[in-house]
Amino acid sequence: MTAAAGMDSPSSSPVRGTPLLKDELDIVIPTIRNLDFLEMWRPFFQPYHLIVVQDGDPSKTIRVPEGFDYELYNRNDIKRILGPKAACISFKDSACRCFGYMVSKKKYIYTIDDDCFTEVKFLRRECVAKDPSGKEIDALEQHISNLLTPSTPYFFNTLYDPYREGTDFVRGYPFSLREGTPTVVSHGLWLNIPDYDAPTQLVKPRERNTRYVDAVLTIPRGTLFPMCGMNLAFDRELIGSAMYFGLMGDGQPIGRYDDMWAGWCIKVICDHLRLGVKTGLPYIWHSKASNPFVNFKKEYKGIFWQEELIPFFQTVVLPKDCTTVQKCYIELSKQVREKLGKIDPYFTKLADAMVTWIEAWEELNPPGTAAEVVNGSSNGK
Amino acid sequence: MTAAAGMDSPSSSPVRGTPLLKDELDIVIPTIRNLDFLEMWRPFFQPYHLIVVQDGDPSKTIRVPEGFDYELYNRNDIKRILGPKAACISFKDSACRCFGYMVSKKKYIYTIDDDCFTEVKFLRRECVAKDPSGKEIDALEQHISNLLTPSTPYFFNTLYDPYREGTDFVRGYPFSLREGTPTVVSHGLWLNIPDYDAPTQLVKPRERNTRYVDAVLTIPRGTLFPMCGMNLAFDRELIGSAMYFGLMGDGQPIGRYDDMWAGWCIKVICDHLRLGVKTGLPYIWHSKASNPFVNFKKEYKGIFWQEELIPFFQTVVLPKDCTTVQKCYIELSKQVREKLGKIDPYFTKLADAMVTWIEAWEELNPPGTAAEVVNGSSNGK
Repeated sequence: MTAAAGMDSPSSSPVRGTPLLKDELDIVIPTIRNLDFLEMWRPFFQPYHLIVVQDGDPSKTIRVPEGFDYELYNRNDIKRILGPKAACISFKDSACRCFGYMVSKKKYIYTIDDDCFTEVKFLRRECVAKDPSGKEIDALEQHISNLLTPSTPYFFNTLYDPYREGTDFVRGYPFSLREGTPTVVSHGLWLNIPDYDAPTQLVKPRERNTRYVDAVLTIPRGTLFPMCGMNLAFDRELIGSAMYFGLMGDGQPIGRYDDMWAGWCIKVICDHLRLGVKTGLPYIWHSKASNPFVNFKKEYKGIFWQEELIPFFQTVVLPKDCTTVQKCYIELSKQVREKLGKIDPYFTKLADAMVTWIEAWEELNPPGTAAEVVNGSSNGK
Repeated sequence: MTAAAGMDSPSSSPVRGTPLLKDELDIVIPTIRNLDFLEMWRPFFQPYHLIVVQDGDPSKTIRVPEGFDYELYNRNDIKRILGPKAACISFKDSACRCFGYMVSKKKYIYTIDDDCFTEVKFLRRECVAKDPSGKEIDALEQHISNLLTPSTPYFFNTLYDPYREGTDFVRGYPFSLREGTPTVVSHGLWLNIPDYDAPTQLVKPRERNTRYVDAVLTIPRGTLFPMCGMNLAFDRELIGSAMYFGLMGDGQPIGRYDDMWAGWCIKVICDHLRLGVKTGLPYIWHSKASNPFVNFKKEYKGIFWQEELIPFFQTVVLPKDCTTVQKCYIELSKQVREKLGKIDPYFTKLADAMVTWIEAWEELNPPGTAAEVVNGSSNGK
């Protein structure tokens, strides 16, 4: 492990009082460059431990600003730790970040892209996104609040997250459903550069997201969503082993579907195990649009394939004996092999990698270290 | 018909330029009092035709401010027009509003409660709700925009309504689903007094909704929601005949479930016929909380019953040959009789009333006057 211990006392952060879940959350960052962007996040991230997953050339040195407590893994580290199983971790693609989820020992993960705010300091005085009142947004605090309050996937609340201060369940919301279900994923959004696909980027090169929607909501049961990995937090213990970002990048026929793939997999598993997924706040400031032509090449096959993937995920049924995330994920890999293998040999390879991922996960996270979710109910209504 | 023609030329409104759908939308208002609140809505509502449904004592005269073009129906009018079928229209309950949907000849309906802003003029200088920039909200304009742009019930878009200016479908949203589906319901929200049930009102007497969430979103397929009739617009031609507010008020064992009932019925029918329902903007200012003790009495049985109604509506399957809203609604009435009749004789009476409602609807809206929605697909995935 190419690790460098930073500050020993992360709680000495000058800005925040008591950082939430300080010892229970790791921040995972995939990168190919120096992490100067962390300067802007210092008041919010410094109390936490960082896991940096270095993509690309392992001989390159990644600079992490002083004062951060971090561990860093490059490709050589990944190969040494996982051996042949390292093949399931993507190379030359930010999908490599999921290795960080695997080696973390914490209950929660927050992952963020390194292009969130790198440019901002030169363009604007503010560094992280601001809410309409002008206050800098503490993204992590909002994610933690999302994760620590329940989700409501079985009935829609028209005033959004009913657990938020100043709001509640509205008239007509069944009382038996007001306890909610554990939240395991908090999907945050982005101001400035929206997360568009290449065709939309090409068609609307100047579109910027300037609208701050002051809401968090549960994605209802049975509904899929496009999960973006740019600003994402989750409960590693409860859903981490399904948070696999697939095979992307070097040697693979597609890219930019890593987080989408993970999102579709975790959603059907959450629906089956009665776990919740929230989306909305917090916003981060996404400073730099990626190259639409490069993206177009990466996405090309995915644009066709997703037309078959979505119906597949919309109709997946997991059997009742799939009572843990790992069991669900192995079952899902079988169905991927059987039903998607016909589309392209890539999906057979992906199904294999899904199994390898679980094996690697269990090796690094031996049974008993994480809470097993036991639930006898199936996905059906 | 106790009608009084107001202005002949509604387009002479001094404030708005070209009112949207001026000749295609009626505003339906149930009331027991003088409609002074309309003064505050004058710049927005004056171009439109109003249908006032007078609840309670028909001998009482309801005053409508000058300059509005309206027709007014009291209980005697309803009885004269519907004969014995008038029994399906609730009395001493705002559920009576659905009579207005039936007699309208327009494609769209907007319905609003008469306690939205009545008190406000004495308390604050502003009359209708304002957006965060301080601009008065043109609720009707937003509803029309919601109705005239498609819905996206088959996949969640994390940047909310993708048809809104300045936003779009995000990466990972299947391209085949981007055409959307016709929107037939626009459910607006409320600032100030939130739409809480009596227990929540009792527990949180001082809670006010001050949060302006700048979003419109589609309620996903297969997800039920609590539809509030306070600030609601819909496509009368496409869904009007299912917009029945049930049997409430005088002589009935429950109240305050009229809009909820309609919402659950329309949602399963929309899911079956591939029509869309949106919620979110616009907000109206809800000025006056209703009495929680009175509400508690009205809701009492509903609080128990809804625990069985929700699973019923969550599992309703409409057969493939139900290709029109009316056919769906009649089928739904059969299932209500069969499955909910066991809970209480009230539901048998309600099932009868649902049939009567459709008979009355077809009498006043003979086949051929409204577009038939033809669709061969069933509710199943």
